[in-house]
Amino acid sequence: MEYKVVNTQISPEGRLEVLSKAEIHKLLDNSHGGLHQVFRSCSLAVLNCGNYLDDGKELLERYASFDIDIIERERGIKLDIKGAPASAFVDDRIIRGIHEHLFAVLRDVLFIGDEINGNRNLDLNSSAGITDAVFHILRNAGILQPITHPNLVVCWGGHSISRVEYDYSKKVGYELGLRGLDIGTGCGPGAMKGPMKGATIGHAKQRITTGRYIGISEPGIIAAESPNPIVNDLVILPDIEKRLEAFVRTGHGIVVFPGGVGTAEEILYILGILMHPENAEQPFPLVFTGPQSAADYFEQIDAFIGLTLGKEAQRRYRIIIDDPVEVAKTMADGMREVREFRKARADAYYFNWTLKIDHEFQKPFAPTHENMRNLKLHKNQPAHLLAADLRRAFSGVVAGNVKEQGIRAIERHGHFEIHGDPMIMEPMDALMNAFVEQHRMKLPGTKYVPCYRIIK
Amino acid sequence: MEYKVVNTQISPEGRLEVLSKAEIHKLLDNSHGGLHQVFRSCSLAVLNCGNYLDDGKELLERYASFDIDIIERERGIKLDIKGAPASAFVDDRIIRGIHEHLFAVLRDVLFIGDEINGNRNLDLNSSAGITDAVFHILRNAGILQPITHPNLVVCWGGHSISRVEYDYSKKVGYELGLRGLDIGTGCGPGAMKGPMKGATIGHAKQRITTGRYIGISEPGIIAAESPNPIVNDLVILPDIEKRLEAFVRTGHGIVVFPGGVGTAEEILYILGILMHPENAEQPFPLVFTGPQSAADYFEQIDAFIGLTLGKEAQRRYRIIIDDPVEVAKTMADGMREVREFRKARADAYYFNWTLKIDHEFQKPFAPTHENMRNLKLHKNQPAHLLAADLRRAFSGVVAGNVKEQGIRAIERHGHFEIHGDPMIMEPMDALMNAFVEQHRMKLPGTKYVPCYRIIK
Amino acid sequence: MEYKVVNTQISPEGRLEVLSKAEIHKLLDNSHGGLHQVFRSCSLAVLNCGNYLDDGKELLERYASFDIDIIERERGIKLDIKGAPASAFVDDRIIRGIHEHLFAVLRDVLFIGDEINGNRNLDLNSSAGITDAVFHILRNAGILQPITHPNLVVCWGGHSISRVEYDYSKKVGYELGLRGLDIGTGCGPGAMKGPMKGATIGHAKQRITTGRYIGISEPGIIAAESPNPIVNDLVILPDIEKRLEAFVRTGHGIVVFPGGVGTAEEILYILGILMHPENAEQPFPLVFTGPQSAADYFEQIDAFIGLTLGKEAQRRYRIIIDDPVEVAKTMADGMREVREFRKARADAYYFNWTLKIDHEFQKPFAPTHENMRNLKLHKNQPAHLLAADLRRAFSGVVAGNVKEQGIRAIERHGHFEIHGDPMIMEPMDALMNAFVEQHRMKLPGTKYVPCYRIIK
Amino acid sequence: MEYKVVNTQISPEGRLEVLSKAEIHKLLDNSHGGLHQVFRSCSLAVLNCGNYLDDGKELLERYASFDIDIIERERGIKLDIKGAPASAFVDDRIIRGIHEHLFAVLRDVLFIGDEINGNRNLDLNSSAGITDAVFHILRNAGILQPITHPNLVVCWGGHSISRVEYDYSKKVGYELGLRGLDIGTGCGPGAMKGPMKGATIGHAKQRITTGRYIGISEPGIIAAESPNPIVNDLVILPDIEKRLEAFVRTGHGIVVFPGGVGTAEEILYILGILMHPENAEQPFPLVFTGPQSAADYFEQIDAFIGLTLGKEAQRRYRIIIDDPVEVAKTMADGMREVREFRKARADAYYFNWTLKIDHEFQKPFAPTHENMRNLKLHKNQPAHLLAADLRRAFSGVVAGNVKEQGIRAIERHGHFEIHGDPMIMEPMDALMNAFVEQHRMKLPGTKYVPCYRIIK
Repeated sequence: MEYKVVNTQISPEGRLEVLSKAEIHKLLDNSHGGLHQVFRSCSLAVLNCGNYLDDGKELLERYASFDIDIIERERGIKLDIKGAPASAFVDDRIIRGIHEHLFAVLRDVLFIGDEINGNRNLDLNSSAGITDAVFHILRNAGILQPITHPNLVVCWGGHSISRVEYDYSKKVGYELGLRGLDIGTGCGPGAMKGPMKGATIGHAKQRITTGRYIGISEPGIIAAESPNPIVNDLVILPDIEKRLEAFVRTGHGIVVFPGGVGTAEEILYILGILMHPENAEQPFPLVFTGPQSAADYFEQIDAFIGLTLGKEAQRRYRIIIDDPVEVAKTMADGMREVREFRKARADAYYFNWTLKIDHEFQKPFAPTHENMRNLKLHKNQPAHLLAADLRRAFSGVVAGNVKEQGIRAIERHGHFEIHGDPMIMEPMDALMNAFVEQHRMKLPGTKYVPCYRIIK
Repeated sequence: MEYKVVNTQISPEGRLEVLSKAEIHKLLDNSHGGLHQVFRSCSLAVLNCGNYLDDGKELLERYASFDIDIIERERGIKLDIKGAPASAFVDDRIIRGIHEHLFAVLRDVLFIGDEINGNRNLDLNSSAGITDAVFHILRNAGILQPITHPNLVVCWGGHSISRVEYDYSKKVGYELGLRGLDIGTGCGPGAMKGPMKGATIGHAKQRITTGRYIGISEPGIIAAESPNPIVNDLVILPDIEKRLEAFVRTGHGIVVFPGGVGTAEEILYILGILMHPENAEQPFPLVFTGPQSAADYFEQIDAFIGLTLGKEAQRRYRIIIDDPVEVAKTMADGMREVREFRKARADAYYFNWTLKIDHEFQKPFAPTHENMRNLKLHKNQPAHLLAADLRRAFSGVVAGNVKEQGIRAIERHGHFEIHGDPMIMEPMDALMNAFVEQHRMKLPGTKYVPCYRIIK
Repeated sequence: MEYKVVNTQISPEGRLEVLSKAEIHKLLDNSHGGLHQVFRSCSLAVLNCGNYLDDGKELLERYASFDIDIIERERGIKLDIKGAPASAFVDDRIIRGIHEHLFAVLRDVLFIGDEINGNRNLDLNSSAGITDAVFHILRNAGILQPITHPNLVVCWGGHSISRVEYDYSKKVGYELGLRGLDIGTGCGPGAMKGPMKGATIGHAKQRITTGRYIGISEPGIIAAESPNPIVNDLVILPDIEKRLEAFVRTGHGIVVFPGGVGTAEEILYILGILMHPENAEQPFPLVFTGPQSAADYFEQIDAFIGLTLGKEAQRRYRIIIDDPVEVAKTMADGMREVREFRKARADAYYFNWTLKIDHEFQKPFAPTHENMRNLKLHKNQPAHLLAADLRRAFSGVVAGNVKEQGIRAIERHGHFEIHGDPMIMEPMDALMNAFVEQHRMKLPGTKYVPCYRIIK
Repeated sequence: MEYKVVNTQISPEGRLEVLSKAEIHKLLDNSHGGLHQVFRSCSLAVLNCGNYLDDGKELLERYASFDIDIIERERGIKLDIKGAPASAFVDDRIIRGIHEHLFAVLRDVLFIGDEINGNRNLDLNSSAGITDAVFHILRNAGILQPITHPNLVVCWGGHSISRVEYDYSKKVGYELGLRGLDIGTGCGPGAMKGPMKGATIGHAKQRITTGRYIGISEPGIIAAESPNPIVNDLVILPDIEKRLEAFVRTGHGIVVFPGGVGTAEEILYILGILMHPENAEQPFPLVFTGPQSAADYFEQIDAFIGLTLGKEAQRRYRIIIDDPVEVAKTMADGMREVREFRKARADAYYFNWTLKIDHEFQKPFAPTHENMRNLKLHKNQPAHLLAADLRRAFSGVVAGNVKEQGIRAIERHGHFEIHGDPMIMEPMDALMNAFVEQHRMKLPGTKYVPCYRIIK
């Protein structure tokens, strides 16, 4: 099958419009060097929005002739794009939201890296240094704006959900939007797109023209979860750990919709953090929600958490089934608590500095076969550290399912092997099987072939 | 069944915030006088948005305790609302869009009337006077804004359409929105809501925050077609003829979706005008469109037009089946022609002064049994005058179907009788029957009992 | 001497850009009818800003070829201007502020009159009706805007003041501007221009870009006091009484700089109102101020008030010599009191509805020889009524000095004769002589020939 | 004499409101380290605006108790200010413009330095690296904004000029403002303040609310030339050479008013650049102007240029005496040429990348006794290099006159000695003597004691 493509040139607006010669040369170097592949694949993902594919490999094959290059002019740069998916254009003009996203890719993939890595003041081996790096990337992307009321609801959940679940996520977004709340997601289809669409309508009815739809992605996932053009603030963090930190430091609360293993990863991440003793007093509204058909799913998750992390963990979230209004009210109430808490501590509203994130949750985890094999999945440790390794286990499965590198590793070395205490491995196995049965591992229509084996 | 209600008081913003004492007293007089019923029923319709009902009578019965009053304060007025549908509120605060709509009702029903009727400079018995009255009402509602590019697409079509047709209208709205076009409709569900929702998403993707969603209603229809809160400019014209004139003088083109007899009325109205010899050169993009399932419907309409008004009439529109992109491109192209035409004649972009509307199309038509009986439905007259009476025939049927007055008249005096030349009456009968068969006469789930009888 | 002139055509923006056919025809009628002379002379005054002349007669003679006409186009109107003073243009383009002022003249002289005079709801023979008329004119001019903090300081004082006094008025304006206060004046040079210039700099330093510089004029005075283009809201009231009412209902406090007989008229007007028993509790900051050189002047005014209206009147103002900071602080403090007072009464901040203005102060006073002769200048009446006739006496002298009609009347019939109680006439005579000696009757360089005779 | 002082704490807005922990710590380090003195003295200069003093030493002595510190809070920083001049406050609240300037000082003195000096990509020993550094500092200060029309007129001239010259500079600023042109100056009183005040009024009359008043200073001069709060974009470059480069790369043309030796330095700088062969085609409107009383002054300058740099140099400027309108027209015309030139070369409008600035003009010149003695002031070299050393000679004299370091050096080591070719030294001596006679070396009222000796 042939896919219609378009060639074009576009100019930056905003941040990248005013560049020094040194910056331009650095950009040209980076774009022709080792970063070109990442830049190209992220750009293609952004251009392909709307045509969701499950893996980036397929996308790159489909648009094999696609390429993107930086052109230098006296006053700055231009992007030269060849073989771009036609769906990014309306009557041959690129959709403005996608135009913005392309320059967000350029900024985050080619530009900010230098400022982070070459910065003597940032020690990326320390927890504080990583947090500062996340801060710099987010600020550079225009995400961190002084605000007077915390109102960013992060929505997590699967990109591969049923129509009923998708419609439900739209309704929740609508009710959040009616209450003046903004939306942050990981981009992509499903539970990441629904809430934004709903909130857009809710904001329109409340005459809110400044609604923010923040998309927080990373190079490894963006191909499978390309950002919807509604996203009006896109940022691409360099790895999954920084992306997760970005979610929890900028979001003022989280709503989790049904999803698959990626959603489980996210849940373990936030619970692991909230269970850290230093965060005991942090208000952080956290709701798991879905339509009636998702009731079982959340019961399974809840059971898994109870069996592995215990009651304390279960206290940090609320499960609400089939009640978008109640979800939105819960978040709106939570926002008020967050505001009071931060105010009392003179903390910023736009970035949660006082939230303790253990270094364990920040270190990039490479889902190699060896690392997967060495995870510590036993109860003989503080719950928040167990949560950290459970998170990594799920993270590895996500990589094996949809990330280019992970897929290739599995192709080469076979299944990941996950070991551990049977009291943990059995519920984990059960959960994974439930995901497979419920078709939560892949986009519908594709058959799931597991990339892991649980060794009890 | 009990319906949840809310009591509240709200203050105006904008135009009605700064009132003179004389104006306040006039408003109080009007609200307690003969206009109270209209004010009350229109207000209730606005508050009931989202819960579509087919007739206003039922709505008033459902919220029998509803009332709305003006309260005078030193600095201006407030509205005191009792027994309002709870769906208009979010956590006990009225949705901002509905707040605006209530004051639009106040403005158009209680306020502007005086300025129109008491205006020595407006002769409402003349064609020019009626046009000026329409102009005054629209300007007072903030609809007429100097613009640099014509871009208002009026969308007509049924409020009672299938899910497939509704989704199609959303897609068309989306493609229009992606091209920077604004939407005007008659308010209400179905083909009036879909394009606005679609355009909202299209505008969001193109970063257009100034999109206009204009709702043009009239007191007799608003209960059955209550405005969606996305509508950010609502105006209520005093009668159906002025409403139709508002559509064609502010809109720069029209897209007609499938509908019922109301849609047929609208089609005959615009064709009658465009066929006037003085409008021969007026560019006016006019597209009839729907998904594949609506192909038959438009074939029937097209056939009816061919048989009654002739080839000349058929030349003024284009039928596009199942191709939202083509519809949007056609409108965008048409806008450019409209711009050139107006520019060449120094006509305004926000109001089509040079469009000739025959006085016959402007005179309010009261759908009494006598008037319906006396319509001139024969070919022995210029086509645009035949169109005028055909328009009236359909208008009467709409009244008998969904307008409070019409319903009561039918209850009292039985069917309307429509006479005429068999060469016209036969296709008309066929068309009406097709509407009934396709369930285009009433909201689904209610059985249609005809309010007319065709006498050939 | 020859004066450079320019011909041009300009289009309206804002309110007069969107006109109905009826309105255009009315405007054309008015501009060709009896109002043409007023329209022409006001327009010329506006165009002549910067080149201050003491009487309108001279101005019209200087630019005898000047004319201004309305041209109809399909979409609205244009102004055709012939023989305009070149100083209104920069490189052949009209200064934007003057452009706006011309359309303010059109709006207030040709347009709003009909709406006021033809309005069945306004009884211009009643006090309430006159207030409503003032309200309508001001609202139509965009002067009445909902605000959250009263901040409009009206500045009164002479157009013919010394450089030292002018510089002082600038400093006061600067200190008012630094405190976020806006300025309203009667337009023209001297004490009307200084505070605006000063406030412009004060606002710039405080980064206030929304500062308002309101000019309130009337056709009889505008030629002698043409508005400075800094004025960004100009309104022309039909007569001096409505102009004064506009000042005291929109202003939240008044600063009086040294002036001549016109300033005395204004002082008597505001004191007459504040002394009305119903206004006893109205907070209304009122300061008389000037540099050291003006100390004598205010002593004379103060003495005159003491001798004629008494101690009660003296309590309503404060005299501050040579202390701009103190003046500004006094006004800023007063604004806070005004705010509390209005808030407690639910009165508007943008229009002082609760201020009682006796009908005597509202009736237009025609300064004919007969009316001047019949003024009741004796103590045998409530002080606020005596103030009313004293105000009229000074008003007549202003007319005889600088208004076209007054000048012609004096040319024809000789001096005005002013009768009254010697206890009043003697201080009045003394005050008038002091004005003459201090050259406060005319612009410097012209010799003053009195237009009145005091008959004790 | 005692000076009134105020203590206060203020929070940042904008750029410095959102800081990372690393940035805060760096700021705290810098503010307590070697940069504290510069930070303190620049802050004091900014707070002392309006009370112009000729040297920074005196200022620091007058406010000996003044200090400024950074306080860390969870969410960012605050400034703690002790012993600040009371004139910076209105009713105990700091003037907003001064508030902004303080954070500009913090940003440019404590913050940006690290980014420049620690930047691996910037080679400060190369010409390109210096230009990039200037670019970074200006961009970081928000000076570089994409614009559609070049319109920045840099105004140079003395801070110590007569009232007549000051008023003239105001009139020129007014005429520039009327033509929509923005103003950049070196801050301070006299010819740097007049054009901004005039332009503010011109902009107000043209309803331009986005007027830019850019102040470009450096730590050594800011005490003597503290920025007027009208300046709404203040930037402090690290040294005089970068400051001069900032002027000529951001300004689109230059107007030179009468001044003293500093003005002569600036004239030699711009001529030296424009005479570089690579700049032969650069359009760069350059006007020397003043009232009639300044005619002699510019004749002397013109003669000096003729004798030293020759006819070619004289061709690059125009002398206009006593004609503000002509000056403004010349600049407006020049802007159009600049626009065409840059457009043709795809150069930016906000930064003149293609202007060649020889490395000689960029290297910081330390005005030590030795460096002054070694200047090459002879004709045996290209004119633009002679201009470079003449520029340095005048620069040294400025330092000896008003900069703290220079004053101290003269106190310690006696006069600077300036050697050179008599054909150059004689006109130079004549020019210097003329400056002294015309009281152009110091603020009026202080006696000038020369800091140099010319050795022919």
